[in-house]
Amino acid sequence: MNNASPIDVAWMRRAVELAGRGIGSTHPNPVVGCVITGRDGHPVGEGFHAVAGGPHAEVVALTMAGDRARGGTAYVTLEPCNHTGRTGPCADALIEAGVARVVYAVPDPNRQASGGAEKLSNKNIQVEQGVLETEAEAVNHVWLHSVRMGRPFVTWKFATTLDGRSAAPDRTSRWITGPIARADVHRKRAECDAIAVGTQTVLDDDPELTVRDEDDVPAARQPLRVVVGDREIPSTAKVRNDRAPTLILPTHDPSEVLRQLDDHHIRHLWLEGGPTLAAAFLRAQLVDQIVAYVAPAVLGSGFSAIGDLGAESIDHLRRFKLADVTRLGDDVRLTLTPLELQRTR
Amino acid sequence: MNNASPIDVAWMRRAVELAGRGIGSTHPNPVVGCVITGRDGHPVGEGFHAVAGGPHAEVVALTMAGDRARGGTAYVTLEPCNHTGRTGPCADALIEAGVARVVYAVPDPNRQASGGAEKLSNKNIQVEQGVLETEAEAVNHVWLHSVRMGRPFVTWKFATTLDGRSAAPDRTSRWITGPIARADVHRKRAECDAIAVGTQTVLDDDPELTVRDEDDVPAARQPLRVVVGDREIPSTAKVRNDRAPTLILPTHDPSEVLRQLDDHHIRHLWLEGGPTLAAAFLRAQLVDQIVAYVAPAVLGSGFSAIGDLGAESIDHLRRFKLADVTRLGDDVRLTLTPLELQRTR
Repeated sequence: MNNASPIDVAWMRRAVELAGRGIGSTHPNPVVGCVITGRDGHPVGEGFHAVAGGPHAEVVALTMAGDRARGGTAYVTLEPCNHTGRTGPCADALIEAGVARVVYAVPDPNRQASGGAEKLSNKNIQVEQGVLETEAEAVNHVWLHSVRMGRPFVTWKFATTLDGRSAAPDRTSRWITGPIARADVHRKRAECDAIAVGTQTVLDDDPELTVRDEDDVPAARQPLRVVVGDREIPSTAKVRNDRAPTLILPTHDPSEVLRQLDDHHIRHLWLEGGPTLAAAFLRAQLVDQIVAYVAPAVLGSGFSAIGDLGAESIDHLRRFKLADVTRLGDDVRLTLTPLELQRTR
Repeated sequence: MNNASPIDVAWMRRAVELAGRGIGSTHPNPVVGCVITGRDGHPVGEGFHAVAGGPHAEVVALTMAGDRARGGTAYVTLEPCNHTGRTGPCADALIEAGVARVVYAVPDPNRQASGGAEKLSNKNIQVEQGVLETEAEAVNHVWLHSVRMGRPFVTWKFATTLDGRSAAPDRTSRWITGPIARADVHRKRAECDAIAVGTQTVLDDDPELTVRDEDDVPAARQPLRVVVGDREIPSTAKVRNDRAPTLILPTHDPSEVLRQLDDHHIRHLWLEGGPTLAAAFLRAQLVDQIVAYVAPAVLGSGFSAIGDLGAESIDHLRRFKLADVTRLGDDVRLTLTPLELQRTR
């Protein structure tokens, strides 16, 4: 919708901003923001979806608006759902509240939940789609990608020296990057639903795979811990402690890993390696984002972050789009996305 | 000089700016900038040292000022020389011009040329040192470092994938980085006096090691090409063409390489690898700056930019200071300097 009015754009921008507040806590649901304006165009309610099982954004905003919603407009970042899950359909709530107009940014790709727009239209509510669609897509891109692809969005994270070493010859790797980069990893882990490593990493590093703050205190909400591979994990391994749920998947097939995680409603998988697991996902073209923490240091020997991809010549280089470069203390974080995404979006 | 007057700081800032214009063309001389203000404090002349054998900054500025320099102040980024080389001593030129005051930022570390300040003082000229010293040091840091250390300043440059590969298993490496990063390499090569590679790199890549523009046209001034090692270089190798002088050094000792380059008045050596040469310089702690071009790509196999440094454990990591991060098109340039420099300066 390129001809959207400045007023519609302004309220939708606020709705997108609200939606962003849910990042990291709504899964397996999308993030959604909503603003309600009254009959006279003034804002009367707003809200966002904060947590699965809790009220949807539209319901939060309608509750705040009360009677003032009647004859007004609802701005929603995602098509209002038509699905009775843990809460009733938002389309029904909007109809009952008597809004005259619903403006939403992105159509719901979820077959189970869609049909909301049609239901609203059938009740003679004026429905418009597409206002600020790009921004609303971006704030929800992990969830949208996951629903559209029918599998979790996969972020591969690794830390490396400038010469591409993620561990020394004796397999030690703590710490390549500094405290500011490591704190960033915990913030990003917190935005995911699952953290996966291979059994080799568990045996080498004994990571806890929890989200912790700077004082090493675990967060209240913990992503699912996933261990991939069929090597034996000792009962004393930290990944087996009670700080977070753990799923052990004795397979080497990335597609099978994602299928099983999809069954667990995982939308965003944070893949922490090591080289064998990372290479398997890359070979299968199942990496949707790479987050690399590069330390200003060289090692000259040791292990690369990634195993063999079958490249023999420079023509086999796997290129990505450089989506972001951020300095974090003494280190640098590079975020890469597939070139395919760049082309098709 | 922390109590420098705002007027002195302002004119010295202009002198530093002028000095910077000489970067890449003055060697083996330093870059120097000079501003002359007349008796009434107004600027009457300015200049910078542009090329070895050409007039020094003070002489350029004094020539512009003419009689108006009498009773005025000269602002110079480096202590005026007291040395008769291809041109006469600048201290004498300032005395003859009748300036009443000389403000300079950085003392001349070159024993042969220093003594200028003392000579000026002896002629009852008011001499002050230290205004904007940090900035004047920075603009001249390569030359100052070289003179103080008695050897060329060494920059190690390499291009790498995110997983630390600088060449594929078949030794192909063209191109890992994109055109904007490669153009940057040519600009930076142009600021050096010599470009060194090992014989293996000549045999693998047959590089020309010249400075060229975007249309592949060679620059008028070319750094010395240096080939280190004792493997035979074919007579057809591009490094043997007539586009630039070439020095072949059949040694493996970095100290010996630098000693011989010092004899050739090389102030800034641009080291382009490969891994064996880079590792030798790093092991000898003879790398003063690392410039790494990182491509958003992974290879999973092939050759690292750097050979074995003897590291067995993560404790052997060689850390540097991250001096700069710059995005260049699809690639990222990281500039690293030794931690020692950070501590001592």
